[in-house]
Formats: sequence, structure tokens, C-alpha cells
Amino acid sequence: MDRTLIAIVADRPGVLTRVASLFRRRAFNIESLTVGHTERAGFSRMTIVVDGRRTDAGKVAQNLEKLVDVIDVEDITGRPAILHDLALIKVHIRDREARSEILRITDSFQARLVDMCPRTATIEIAGSERTIDTVVEALRAHGILEMVRTGRVAMVRGEAESEPRVPSFETAWDTGGRAWQG
Amino acid sequence: MDRTLIAIVADRPGVLTRVASLFRRRAFNIESLTVGHTERAGFSRMTIVVDGRRTDAGKVAQNLEKLVDVIDVEDITGRPAILHDLALIKVHIRDREARSEILRITDSFQARLVDMCPRTATIEIAGSERTIDTVVEALRAHGILEMVRTGRVAMVRGEAESEPRVPSFETAWDTGGRAWQG
Repeated sequence: MDRTLIAIVADRPGVLTRVASLFRRRAFNIESLTVGHTERAGFSRMTIVVDGRRTDAGKVAQNLEKLVDVIDVEDITGRPAILHDLALIKVHIRDREARSEILRITDSFQARLVDMCPRTATIEIAGSERTIDTVVEALRAHGILEMVRTGRVAMVRGEAESEPRVPSFETAWDTGGRAWQG
Repeated sequence: MDRTLIAIVADRPGVLTRVASLFRRRAFNIESLTVGHTERAGFSRMTIVVDGRRTDAGKVAQNLEKLVDVIDVEDITGRPAILHDLALIKVHIRDREARSEILRITDSFQARLVDMCPRTATIEIAGSERTIDTVVEALRAHGILEMVRTGRVAMVRGEAESEPRVPSFETAWDTGGRAWQG
């Protein structure tokens, strides 16, 4: 079973390299990894999905927490959460009939048509991996020319904030550089 | 100015570590990096955004292409393209008036309400970084409790496929493992 970890990291050079090297060194089996901005400049949030059958998520969290510039890590698996992904899918339009079917699929799944040409359409869909996989399967019959996905981001539902939290202004320190620099 | 690179990589252990180490070693200034599935199992697609004023995108592409398991890289900057990002934003609902304003913002930007409680709402928005930044600014007055973003994914508009392409079945080889493993 998939397990979802959230890690808050300081935007400093080297943090991505350290995380990637840890996964490599310990042979952790990572299904997906995204890193993006948070509500506070200077901090990024990683969403890490591991295959729970092959990789011990507790060990991943424990090891991540020891890394420099990793502020906090939590396994949110089992908590009610939004686990979403974004996909851009470019699909071939064979004929008029195909076009209306593609539009029907787009509507049915609340996807969005972001580009349309005589022979191709590009569809954007945000949602659970299962929803996106379903749309991909529905479109596959038409011929998928190209697809890109972001990987999963996660947020705990309800009024509770997802642990871990970005440090408040009071406890935070100034961070230069960027996590992305490696 | 931001420059956007697309890299197709084979899903093999170590590819993420190699990419992250390259950025670190050469001190490339990376604004964002996402890695996700493509239309073909065994291949992932990285979208890399670099700050063109501080980092030479051509040099990044050149260096990436030399790495093991990096199939192809292209700088799509300047080509008409969809450059989108996904954000989940949890916002505080102070009172009834705040609630209706939050719903109005959600509607205006074609965002989606993905969770709603008496005191918090979670909004999902996919779009250009500028659109997402605008929504974030509009919601900030209400108090953003938590935010996560995926980072940019990119696809060239129109009928042309984005170069680089995932190898076709004929030219592809079998890949075990996963890019994510580091």
C-alpha cells in the first residue's frame, strides 16, 4: 500500500541532493516526489509517496528527519486527506466523432480543455491518481501523443492543519538560497 | 527570465540523485523541479525551471544530456506552451461574510472547493503560476493556514509534440527500477 509522507524543508542549497542521496543509499522505493512552495517564503514542502510493501515508511521518515535542513516529517497515511495530482494530456483527434467523444470525457471528469487544434486536444485534469488514471484510460483509445504528471501533493482534510507545519515567523530563521539548487 | 526545460529520463535507480547532484555541483539555480509519469511506463518526464539571469539554461541542458539515463533534454522557452502548476490552499473562514467571499474567489478563478468545514475551506487551483499567485494573494487576507504546490509542468501548444519525446516502443529498452529511487 502507498504511504504518503510530508516533509517541510528549508530552502537551502543541497537539501534536494541530500534527500535524493538518502533514497539511493538506503534503496528506498519512492513512487513519487514533489517539492513546492509553501505558505511561507524560505520553506518548501515535499510530498513523498513510498510503496509500503517494499519500503518501511517509518524508516524513511526517521532517516529524513536526521538530514540537515529537513525541519519536520510526518506520515499522514490513514488520515483523511486530499491526495491530488495534475496531468496534461495531449490526445489525437481522428475525426469529428472522436472530437465529441474527447469533449464528453473532458466534461464528465470535470477536466479542462486547455488547447485545441484540428488534430489534437490538450486536456488538464487535477484529482486523485485513480481519477486521472481513469481519464488516461478513456483517452488512450484516441491515441495519447504526450503526457506529463506532477506527482502527488497531499493535504489533511478538515480543520486540523497537516503536521508537520512550517515554522511560524517567531521560530523561523532567515533562509537564503533555494532547496532546488540541489 | 525563467527558462523551462523538459527532460525525458529512464525510470532507473539513481537518476534523481544524479540530476540533483549535478545542480548542486555546478551551483545551478533551479526555481522548480517536478518529475512525473509519461505516456509510457519506464520513462519519466522532468520539468525544470531555471532562473535565466543567474543560470545558463543551455549549460544545464548540455550537462543534463551527459548524465546516465537522461534520454533527451530540451529548452522550450519561447515556444507557445502550457506552463501549469497545482496548488492546494487551506484558508481560515472567519465568519459568514468571509465564507461567501472565499467562494466568490473560488468561482472567479475557476478554482475548486475540495474540502469545507465550519472554520476552514480547502481550495484547489490548477493554472499558470501567475493565476495561482493571484488567488493566493486574494485568499491571504483571510489567513492561509497551509499551502502546497506541485511546481510547474509544461507542454508545448498545438499539434507539435514537445521535444524531447519518449522513445517509441521500437527504440525503447526495458527499464526496471524507478527514477524515484534516487
